[in-house]
Amino acid sequence: MFQQLGLIGCGLMGGSFALALKKAGLVRSVVGYSKSSTTLEKACQLGVIDRAAQSAQQAVSGSDIVLIAVPVSATHSTFAAIKDNLKPGILVMDVGSTKRDVINAAKQVLQASLPCFVPAHPIAGKETGGIEHADAQLYQGKQVILTPIEQTDPVSVQQATQVWTAMGCNVLKMSAESHDAAFAAVSHLPHLLAFAYIHAIASQPAGNEFLALAGSGFRDFSRIAASEPTVWRDILLANRDEILKQSAAFRACLDHFEALLQNGSSQELAQAITTASTVRSHWTMHRQAKKTSPP
Amino acid sequence: MFQQLGLIGCGLMGGSFALALKKAGLVRSVVGYSKSSTTLEKACQLGVIDRAAQSAQQAVSGSDIVLIAVPVSATHSTFAAIKDNLKPGILVMDVGSTKRDVINAAKQVLQASLPCFVPAHPIAGKETGGIEHADAQLYQGKQVILTPIEQTDPVSVQQATQVWTAMGCNVLKMSAESHDAAFAAVSHLPHLLAFAYIHAIASQPAGNEFLALAGSGFRDFSRIAASEPTVWRDILLANRDEILKQSAAFRACLDHFEALLQNGSSQELAQAITTASTVRSHWTMHRQAKKTSPP
Repeated sequence: MFQQLGLIGCGLMGGSFALALKKAGLVRSVVGYSKSSTTLEKACQLGVIDRAAQSAQQAVSGSDIVLIAVPVSATHSTFAAIKDNLKPGILVMDVGSTKRDVINAAKQVLQASLPCFVPAHPIAGKETGGIEHADAQLYQGKQVILTPIEQTDPVSVQQATQVWTAMGCNVLKMSAESHDAAFAAVSHLPHLLAFAYIHAIASQPAGNEFLALAGSGFRDFSRIAASEPTVWRDILLANRDEILKQSAAFRACLDHFEALLQNGSSQELAQAITTASTVRSHWTMHRQAKKTSPP
Repeated sequence: MFQQLGLIGCGLMGGSFALALKKAGLVRSVVGYSKSSTTLEKACQLGVIDRAAQSAQQAVSGSDIVLIAVPVSATHSTFAAIKDNLKPGILVMDVGSTKRDVINAAKQVLQASLPCFVPAHPIAGKETGGIEHADAQLYQGKQVILTPIEQTDPVSVQQATQVWTAMGCNVLKMSAESHDAAFAAVSHLPHLLAFAYIHAIASQPAGNEFLALAGSGFRDFSRIAASEPTVWRDILLANRDEILKQSAAFRACLDHFEALLQNGSSQELAQAITTASTVRSHWTMHRQAKKTSPP
């Protein structure tokens, strides 16, 4: 049981964490901070936070658990703002979609407090961000990946595991390198491809006429292209080396498919599609499986 | 009111058409033909067809409406099988996802009967094909595109329009060229990209570990990669010139995005993502709009 959660960043991810922590009976009160005073006011009105802090530093004072839920690019400055107020025994986590950059920032800034920071990435979200969509169930049945480093205190890792487990999450641990490589492949590259794809359609003179004819295949394939631009700018830049590697692998496969089309290689094309279709048909989302049989 | 529907190809599309036509009270009986005797038997058992024909030719005999619902690559041979049994006044339609190739086959084969053929593409489907998924509601609220040519009898086009409208469809007419260009952009290219993407992941040593971490973004983006291989081989080959044009436009945009990543052009990257995100956020699927306000 924690006395006080210091929430830095009152958006969908942070707000949902606060609600879920309260619902699990793991915290007495929540102090929140947001750069936007409107957001902060809304967070109070909605009961997501109990008290508004005037700074990140103030949100951390008196807190024994801290969640940093800001855009990845703001993590460094957030660490700098709070580093002198981190008492021994405090648990600090983030929710960033990239982990190597967050860890680099932590190493540069946190110094003596580095052991209390447990890098975390809950695989959850909604198309629509913002505190007004905060949801105590957002993390229920989802995967959370922790990427502790050599310096991380094992006690902090254990605490972090207990917190996310109490919220109904399935906790996985891996290195930040493995995390960033995997998410470049299964999340960041698809976003990049979807952005480029919509751009390509919209850039054509007949683009609007084309879009008017699009059906459910288009709807699902391109859904992630509607994602929040600044969040995704940050992610694409933070993980660009792994994303460019994945993009190169994708381009090689696209080259191959195009060559089969150009050559009219009917049998090989059917074989290549069958491989993809079989892999995708057999895939099931971990989080869906978890929903029906909670951990 | 038609006396008899001759259904050639008893899969999801054809079976659903037969059920919808009956439900609309537009046909007295349905004679079906399938290359597979198992499918044909199932179609009878499920009551999708009233009588099984031994050949495509036999399915057409005595019919005043014919639906060709076979893979696009089998259209030519189907036309050849039925061409001598098409009485004047008969309405013949297909449901193929590509239209120029179907029209070329019709021109080559049908000769004097060419005017009674109305090329059609209903924008409907399910992930799972097969007669057992046939559904009288499949076409309800969906778009159907007719691509009549100079030789098509205007009376046949009017009949075709009435049939699909009675099933609750929104009927659009356009040239086969416009159709194939548009669907290369909004349907065929996304399938090609999704196939290549899954291939690229599956080809990596860590592919399975990556896939185990994938979430809802991956799920939706890659859903169409699970599509039926022979159907999609046919579509990609039939429309390859337009698809390769669209793929080139996509690659140019991907090049641009990658350059922004490589150069760390934060502001331009945010701008490019915003363009895509805005276009996709404002898009709404025609068929969804139609569901709430039927034509």
